Amino acid sequence: MITVGVIGATGYAGSELMRLLVAHPNIQSILCGSHSHAGSPYQSVYPNFGKIYHQQLDSADIAQMADRCDVLFLSLPHGISSHQLNSEILKKCLIIDLGADYRLKDVAVYEQWYNTSHGSAQLLNQAVYGLSELYRSDIAASRLIANPGCYTTTAILTLHPLLYDGLIESKGIIIDAKSGVSGAGRGEKLDSLYCEVNETLKAYAVGTHRHTVEIEEQLALSLTHGKSIKDVVLQFTPHLVPMNRGILATVYANLQEGVGLSEIEASYKKHYDKEQFIRMLEPGVFPQTRWVKSSNYVDIGFTVDKRTNRLIACGALDNLVKGAAGQAVQNMNIALGFAESAGIDMIAPFPL
Amino acid sequence: MITVGVIGATGYAGSELMRLLVAHPNIQSILCGSHSHAGSPYQSVYPNFGKIYHQQLDSADIAQMADRCDVLFLSLPHGISSHQLNSEILKKCLIIDLGADYRLKDVAVYEQWYNTSHGSAQLLNQAVYGLSELYRSDIAASRLIANPGCYTTTAILTLHPLLYDGLIESKGIIIDAKSGVSGAGRGEKLDSLYCEVNETLKAYAVGTHRHTVEIEEQLALSLTHGKSIKDVVLQFTPHLVPMNRGILATVYANLQEGVGLSEIEASYKKHYDKEQFIRMLEPGVFPQTRWVKSSNYVDIGFTVDKRTNRLIACGALDNLVKGAAGQAVQNMNIALGFAESAGIDMIAPFPL
Amino acid sequence: MITVGVIGATGYAGSELMRLLVAHPNIQSILCGSHSHAGSPYQSVYPNFGKIYHQQLDSADIAQMADRCDVLFLSLPHGISSHQLNSEILKKCLIIDLGADYRLKDVAVYEQWYNTSHGSAQLLNQAVYGLSELYRSDIAASRLIANPGCYTTTAILTLHPLLYDGLIESKGIIIDAKSGVSGAGRGEKLDSLYCEVNETLKAYAVGTHRHTVEIEEQLALSLTHGKSIKDVVLQFTPHLVPMNRGILATVYANLQEGVGLSEIEASYKKHYDKEQFIRMLEPGVFPQTRWVKSSNYVDIGFTVDKRTNRLIACGALDNLVKGAAGQAVQNMNIALGFAESAGIDMIAPFPL
Amino acid sequence: MITVGVIGATGYAGSELMRLLVAHPNIQSILCGSHSHAGSPYQSVYPNFGKIYHQQLDSADIAQMADRCDVLFLSLPHGISSHQLNSEILKKCLIIDLGADYRLKDVAVYEQWYNTSHGSAQLLNQAVYGLSELYRSDIAASRLIANPGCYTTTAILTLHPLLYDGLIESKGIIIDAKSGVSGAGRGEKLDSLYCEVNETLKAYAVGTHRHTVEIEEQLALSLTHGKSIKDVVLQFTPHLVPMNRGILATVYANLQEGVGLSEIEASYKKHYDKEQFIRMLEPGVFPQTRWVKSSNYVDIGFTVDKRTNRLIACGALDNLVKGAAGQAVQNMNIALGFAESAGIDMIAPFPL
Repeated sequence: MITVGVIGATGYAGSELMRLLVAHPNIQSILCGSHSHAGSPYQSVYPNFGKIYHQQLDSADIAQMADRCDVLFLSLPHGISSHQLNSEILKKCLIIDLGADYRLKDVAVYEQWYNTSHGSAQLLNQAVYGLSELYRSDIAASRLIANPGCYTTTAILTLHPLLYDGLIESKGIIIDAKSGVSGAGRGEKLDSLYCEVNETLKAYAVGTHRHTVEIEEQLALSLTHGKSIKDVVLQFTPHLVPMNRGILATVYANLQEGVGLSEIEASYKKHYDKEQFIRMLEPGVFPQTRWVKSSNYVDIGFTVDKRTNRLIACGALDNLVKGAAGQAVQNMNIALGFAESAGIDMIAPFPL
Repeated sequence: MITVGVIGATGYAGSELMRLLVAHPNIQSILCGSHSHAGSPYQSVYPNFGKIYHQQLDSADIAQMADRCDVLFLSLPHGISSHQLNSEILKKCLIIDLGADYRLKDVAVYEQWYNTSHGSAQLLNQAVYGLSELYRSDIAASRLIANPGCYTTTAILTLHPLLYDGLIESKGIIIDAKSGVSGAGRGEKLDSLYCEVNETLKAYAVGTHRHTVEIEEQLALSLTHGKSIKDVVLQFTPHLVPMNRGILATVYANLQEGVGLSEIEASYKKHYDKEQFIRMLEPGVFPQTRWVKSSNYVDIGFTVDKRTNRLIACGALDNLVKGAAGQAVQNMNIALGFAESAGIDMIAPFPL
Repeated sequence: MITVGVIGATGYAGSELMRLLVAHPNIQSILCGSHSHAGSPYQSVYPNFGKIYHQQLDSADIAQMADRCDVLFLSLPHGISSHQLNSEILKKCLIIDLGADYRLKDVAVYEQWYNTSHGSAQLLNQAVYGLSELYRSDIAASRLIANPGCYTTTAILTLHPLLYDGLIESKGIIIDAKSGVSGAGRGEKLDSLYCEVNETLKAYAVGTHRHTVEIEEQLALSLTHGKSIKDVVLQFTPHLVPMNRGILATVYANLQEGVGLSEIEASYKKHYDKEQFIRMLEPGVFPQTRWVKSSNYVDIGFTVDKRTNRLIACGALDNLVKGAAGQAVQNMNIALGFAESAGIDMIAPFPL
Repeated sequence: MITVGVIGATGYAGSELMRLLVAHPNIQSILCGSHSHAGSPYQSVYPNFGKIYHQQLDSADIAQMADRCDVLFLSLPHGISSHQLNSEILKKCLIIDLGADYRLKDVAVYEQWYNTSHGSAQLLNQAVYGLSELYRSDIAASRLIANPGCYTTTAILTLHPLLYDGLIESKGIIIDAKSGVSGAGRGEKLDSLYCEVNETLKAYAVGTHRHTVEIEEQLALSLTHGKSIKDVVLQFTPHLVPMNRGILATVYANLQEGVGLSEIEASYKKHYDKEQFIRMLEPGVFPQTRWVKSSNYVDIGFTVDKRTNRLIACGALDNLVKGAAGQAVQNMNIALGFAESAGIDMIAPFPL
C-alpha cells in the first residue's frame, strides 16, 4: 500500500485522477495540491467527493510533496514542471507528468511549438513517453513518465500498427480529430462558456496545434522501429464538439501497394489482440465515444475505400481517462508492478 | 460468490445493473435475459461490455432463469412480473423487482393508477418496499424486494425525516421534480428523439403520474410511523430536462408552528448522519445532479423561507443508479449480508 | 423611419435586440454602444452580423447616444441606468430599459433586494412597467419603459387573469421556474462554463431571487385591480437547465371555493383570446419551450387537480425574446404607434 | 402574390420550409400535404404555428396539389418523386424537389448508389441542380429544380472556386464532414433517440454515403468548366454530432505548384464577393456553425499549411436552411424573379 500525491488536483484531469486513485486497491493515502485552492477541503471544490475523501488541499509545491509520496502526479500547465523538477526529486519518488514538458524528445521542437524555454532538458533522456501499450517495459524501469496528450494517444494508437508494419504511406496522413469540451480545461474563458459552445461546432488551431509534433515524433518512431523521430510530417486538425468528454480521431492514409483490408486487420490483431484496453471493432464498424466514456478503453474501427485506395480508421477514447488520468494510473501500475488494470477496469456507463 | 440473473437486461436500467454486477466483488457469474434480443451476445447490444462480458442473452423466462440463480433481478414493464411470479419461484431465489408491481400495498390503488389487474396480489404481503435506508431490516429478511421508482426514492428520502418527526404539515406538500431523458427508457418513440427533447423543457403527466401514489403511500407511513398508508395527499409534477441522467426534486412544505431551520437540520442529521449514501448539504446549499451522476449517492439541501414560513428542500440522485440499479444492488447486499456498499461505492466522475 | 440605439449591445439580450432591430421594417438606422468593446466593428464581436450590419460599437455613454436616437434601449447591469438617466435625456428620446432599475414601484424594496441605492427615484413615477399585454395604454404614453425580467414576464402572464378574476387564493402561490443558461449572461464565470452546466440541474437563489419582489408587486396590482402593490407574498424558485434558451414556469395555486376548470379556462380566454403573442393551450396540454424558442410567443397550459383542489399552470417563453429583446421591441412598437408585431412576428424554428 | 404547396410538410426540412414560406412577402397562400398526418391541422403537429397558420394537412398527392399551386415543393424520401412526376405536372407548376431523385445527371450512378430504379430518367435533362450561386441563370429558366443535399451544398461551395480556378489538385481531396442530428430526419429510430446521440460522436456511412457521388459529379463540372461529370473521385466521411442543426465540412486538398494563400484568397473573393449568402472569413479564421444557425448564410474559412503544402478549408451552414429549405426558397425567388433574398435574409440568432 502506497501514498500518492496529485499536484493540480482541481483541474478536470486532476480531479478525474483523484477519483481513480481513491478507488485504487493498492493506495493507502492520497495527498492533493493546488495553486488556487490551497487550504480548502477537497470536497468543497468537488462535492462529488463528499463523505468519501476528507483531505485538504496543500500548496502546489512539488519538492515538498515529493518528500511525502511514493508517486507524484503532476497535472499542470506546460512550462511549470520542467522548471521545478530535478534529479533530487526523481530520487525521492516516481513522477508521472500529465503535462507536455517531457513528451517531446527534440527540445528544439518543444521550444518552438510551445514558445518557451525548457527548464530541464537534461532530464529528457530519463523521461519515457507514457503510452502504456507501446512502452510498457521502459515505463516499468522509469522514474519520470511523460503521460501523453489526449489527441495524441488516440491518433498514435490508431496508426501505430499500420506504420510499424509498413502498410500505409507515411506521407499524406491526415488526422481529423474531434474533442469534447473538458479538453479545454476549467479556466474561465469566454470560449468555454456554455452558450458559446453548446449547439455549435468548429475547427481550431488548424495547422498549429501542439499535439501535431508529438504525434509526428511518435509515429516516426513507429515507422522506423525506434530509429528516428523525424520522418513523419502529417496534418492534424482538432475540432470542438458540444459534449463533456470524448475524443474521436478520424484518420486518412494512403495504402501501400498491394495492401487491402485483410492485411490491415491482421496488423491490428497482431499488435492489439492481447491488449486489455484496446478493442478492435469488426472491419466496417466504427467506434462511438459513448462506449468508452468514463472508461480506460480505446475503440478502433477501420475500413478500406477501394474507390480511393485509402484507409479510413477511427479511434475513440475518453480524453480524461485513457487520454489523461486513466493512462497515468495505468503507467503507475506498470511502473510499480501492480496489476495493469488495477483501479481502471471500469465499464463505460451508458447512457451517460 | 453467487450467481445472479437479470431479466430485461437490454433496457437502460437493466444495462446499468449489468454494469454494476460485472464489477461486484461477491458475484461469480451473471446471466442475462431479454425478450427482444434473446440469442445475441450482450456486447453486440452494448459495445461498452466488449472484451469484458462475453455471455449471450437468454430468453426472458422468469421461471427458467430462477432455477439457475441465487438472485434474480427483474427490469420489466409493469404488469409482467405480477403475472409470472409465484411462491415456487420465490423459494428458489431472491427476487428484486425494479418494476412497479409490488411497490404499492393497496392493490386497489395499483389497479386504478396502472389501469390493469394485479396478477399476484397474494404475494404483496411478502413484498418489502426496497428503499434501502428506510427498510433495511425488512429487506434483510425478504425474498421479494420491490425496488422503488426513481422519482419516489428522491422525494421520499427528501421528506421522510421531516414528516416522521412532525416538523412539516402533511397537507399541502408540493413536489416539483425534474428528470433526465433516460427515465423514459429505450423505446423508439417520437417524444424521445434527440431533436424533440434537446434544447427544450416540459412538464408531463401533470396530476396523473403513477409515482404520485407510491410517494403518498410511503410518506403516509413516515407520518404515522408505519400505521397508515392513507393519510397523505400531495402534488407531484414531473418535468423532462435535456440531459441523459439525473433527478432533482424540489419540495415545498409548510412548517409546523415553531419549527425553524435548526429543527429541520437536526432532524435530517438524526436520520441520515450515519447513512453512507445520503449526503446532507449545509443549510442554504442546494444539490446539483452532476455531483451524484453515475453514483449511488443522494444529495439533499434545504432552506427555510421566513417570508412564507415554508421549507424548500431539494434531493438529487442518478435515476439509473440510486433510482434503479444501484439501489437494487444495495438491496441485494443487505439481503445477502454483503457489505452494503459492495460494488456501488463509486465517486461520481466529473465533468460527465 | 427612425433611428434607434442600443447600449449594452454585446450582451446576450443586447445582441438579440440588435438582431430584431436590424430586421425591423420601421427602423432606418441603428447605433450600438458597449463598455467593453467600444471601437470594434459589431460583426467582429458577433460574426452572425457579417455582410449585414456594418457599424462600429460606440462607447456606452447614455447622454451622448440619446442625442442621436429616437429610441434608446439600455441593456445594462442594475444600478447603472438609475444613476445616468435624467429628465433631460427623457425629453430627447424614448428610453426602454431592459434592466431592473425602474421595474419596482417601491424604492425601498429595490434598495433592499438589490443592495444598492437608487439613483433617480424621482423618475419612478414616470416609468411604466413594460409588460406589453397588461400596460398597453400606459406604454403608449410613456417616455420611460421598464422592460420586465424574463422570469417575471412568464410568471405574471401565467397568473394575472386568475388573480384579477379572483379564481385562486393569493396566499400560498408557488412558482417553480426553470431557465436556460443564456439568462446568466455572457460573463466569464466558472458557473457558466460548459462543463459545469451541461448534463446537470440545480435550484439557485432559493428564497432570495430578485424577481420575487417584481412578481409580487405586479401580481398584487392584478389582485387589487391596481390599488396595491403589497398584498401578495409568494414562493419563487429558479432552476438552471442545460439548454441555451427558454423559460418554463410551473405555477401552483389553491383554487377559490367553487372554482373549476371551466372558470379558469374562461378567465384565460377573456384576457388573452385577442392577444397575438399569448397562446392558450387546451386544458391538460402543457407548453414546451421548443415551440416558442426564438419567437415572441408565450404558451400557457393548465389543469386542475381535483385530488388537491389546486391549479397547476405552466407558462413558456424565450427569455431573450418575449423575456427581454422581443418585448422591448413590442413596447417600442406600442409607444411609437407601429404595428405591435412589427419585426417580432417570427415563428419559432424547429428543431432548434 | 402566389400560391405554393409543400408535400412532406411534417418532416424537419418540410416544416422549416413551411416556416420560411409563411413569412415570405410574395406568398399569399400555402397548402401542405403529408402522407402520415393528412387531415390534421398543421399546428397540431407543429404547435409553433399556433395562432399563425391555420390550414389542415392534405394528402401527399403530387398531381392533385400541382393543380392548385404556382410552385410545389417536394420534401420526400428518394424514389417517390421520380415515380410520380411527369411532364404534365411540370407544365402546371414549378417543381422544387428537396429530395435526391433529380440531382445526379448520371442515372446509372443514381441507380447504383440508391439501389433503386429511376422512375423518370427522361426528365433528368430538364432538371437543373439547384445550387443557387452556381446555377442562377439555369434555375431562372427551369421548371424542375433539384435542390442539393446539405452536405453537398457545404462541400461544393467550399471547393468550387479552387477547382474552377485550378488551384488545387482534383485527386486526393478529403471531405471530413460533421452534422447535427436533424439531418437524420424525424423517424422513430433507435439511433436517433436522445440518449443514444447525446454526449457522443461517431463517423457513419464511411466510404458509402450517397452524397459522395453528388459532390463528385458537381466538382467534376467545376473542374472542367461544365464539360465532364466524371473526373473527380474523392473521400467523403460524415459524422454525427450532438446538436440539433448545423453542418461543418473540413476539406483537405493538395495545392497545385506555386499556389499560396494569396491565390486562394483571390479566387474565393472573385467567385463570392458579391454573393449575399456566402461570407468569406479572413485567412486563418475558421467558421462556427453557431453563426449561421437558423440562417441562409454559408461561412467559409481557410488556411494553407506550408508544412504539408495543403489547403485546409471549412464551410459551415444550417442543414435545414441553406442545406434544404432556405436554398429551396432562394431557388424559388430566382425562378420567379423575386428578390433573391426575399423571406430568407434572417440573421442567425445567438445563443441558440
